[in-house]
Amino acid sequence: MSEKITAGVIGLGSMGYGIAGAILNAGHKVFGFDRAAEPVSRFVESGGLTGELPKEAGAFDIAVIVVLNAGQTESVLFGENGIVSTMKKGAAVISCATVSPAFAKKMADKCAKKGVHYLDAPISGGSVKASQGKLSVMASGSPDAFTSAEPALDAMAEKVFRLGNTAGTGSAMKAVNQLLAGVHIASMAEAVTFGIHQGISAQKIVEVITQSAGNSWMFENRAPHVVKGDYTPHSAVDIWPKDLGVVTDIARESGFSAPLAATALQQFVAASGSGLGREDDAAVAKVYARNANIKLPGVETP
Amino acid sequence: MSEKITAGVIGLGSMGYGIAGAILNAGHKVFGFDRAAEPVSRFVESGGLTGELPKEAGAFDIAVIVVLNAGQTESVLFGENGIVSTMKKGAAVISCATVSPAFAKKMADKCAKKGVHYLDAPISGGSVKASQGKLSVMASGSPDAFTSAEPALDAMAEKVFRLGNTAGTGSAMKAVNQLLAGVHIASMAEAVTFGIHQGISAQKIVEVITQSAGNSWMFENRAPHVVKGDYTPHSAVDIWPKDLGVVTDIARESGFSAPLAATALQQFVAASGSGLGREDDAAVAKVYARNANIKLPGVETP
Repeated sequence: MSEKITAGVIGLGSMGYGIAGAILNAGHKVFGFDRAAEPVSRFVESGGLTGELPKEAGAFDIAVIVVLNAGQTESVLFGENGIVSTMKKGAAVISCATVSPAFAKKMADKCAKKGVHYLDAPISGGSVKASQGKLSVMASGSPDAFTSAEPALDAMAEKVFRLGNTAGTGSAMKAVNQLLAGVHIASMAEAVTFGIHQGISAQKIVEVITQSAGNSWMFENRAPHVVKGDYTPHSAVDIWPKDLGVVTDIARESGFSAPLAATALQQFVAASGSGLGREDDAAVAKVYARNANIKLPGVETP
Repeated sequence: MSEKITAGVIGLGSMGYGIAGAILNAGHKVFGFDRAAEPVSRFVESGGLTGELPKEAGAFDIAVIVVLNAGQTESVLFGENGIVSTMKKGAAVISCATVSPAFAKKMADKCAKKGVHYLDAPISGGSVKASQGKLSVMASGSPDAFTSAEPALDAMAEKVFRLGNTAGTGSAMKAVNQLLAGVHIASMAEAVTFGIHQGISAQKIVEVITQSAGNSWMFENRAPHVVKGDYTPHSAVDIWPKDLGVVTDIARESGFSAPLAATALQQFVAASGSGLGREDDAAVAKVYARNANIKLPGVETP
């Protein structure tokens, strides 16, 4: 059991809330912050603390940043109430948003100037695993960053992939995973709707594919949502214009042609643009269904 | 154990040769045929029979057609030496090539006019499983077609998916699987080369992704070929311009927009067009590597 520390979790969405709870359950002192009042008061009711930033950040051994994107990450760290201004030398920032490797390097450099260790640490696993402390973390950073971040990593993660000594590699690895995950969700949608269009039931398609070479982690996880017609958002469509946007931005800026990521991105942009953004990401199947004029299980025809 | 029958296997490529051997091993009498002399004499040395077509086909209880495409299938069945002309009433054709559902229906109708049962029965699993009698078969056809085909199905397949009473559904299901399998091989190549371009080793990428949500059956099977730089063809690049071509033809003709299949197809066409057609299909990674000017493990820079 590692030493008890004081942590701050900034961003109490479905992932951040779970992470804050997992660190709390490990016996640490945890401050939680969010722009919305509801998750903060819910967190305080369950035994957490809160307060004003950047004042409270002076007490943090570790700050876990679980916001949506690079802009929000930079704002939390170095904006008007940026926490790095008050954090102790030797404290750690664990940065979890999906960002570009170049952005992660820039944040690490800026933190280093203040004596704060920056761990480039994108997460995956979903909100249920977050609350169980069983996330996967694709992490890179200095040995000191890993050491100082360890008590929080131990509490929040089942697997920590150690990807090297410099910030950026963690984010690059996350981008590789998101490229695959996004393409595979869209290919699930393309294949299931194609099969329905050919007269095969969604249930039969899932039964056969999950036992065949066309299977993927995402197919097995998301195709049942289409079979049930249940688009309750476990992971929302709107994640993908953002994450595949990061992937294709990195690719374009570095001179890498990524045609499948670019194509999948367009399907999610169409899903989001047509009003499906807050639905489960399996709802990208509705774009295909609309384009082919077919009915999906449990979905009224458009 | 089912009754001993006389079977003909037409097409002794890597899949057909394995199937012929598996039916032979089950104790049946098997005639093998191929345009090439070598596999035929090899099959005869291992205990098989051969002869002239369509003459020998008069003895077949079951003919298994394991050729490349629709054109060859039609030629074997109804061409100059077409076997249906001499086959017995009540005998079965098991048609294994990846073809369109419309073509399968047409062949079934033409066979029915001669009293021959047609089972629309695309296969998957690769040559090793073929030789072990452990293929997966995505089959549809009349109950009589299933019954008469049973002794050969029992010998060649581990899993027979029964997809309905009419020819065409088996081929549609195979197309759904090939859409996913082809897209996933290309997405493996896109993701692994993207990661290498970002400075992560191929080996580390495979280690992380196989434990993450970006995993797929094809990623797990094919990415190690890229890590080892081993492009010995287990399944060749040239399969995919053909199979994804069938998928996109079916999609276009039926009014179904399939942008990921179309995009993956272009990557395989580029691989084949640049001379990689006979290499393992993981060699589609070389197209990405060339476009981004990176070196793959074990591959000399172009």
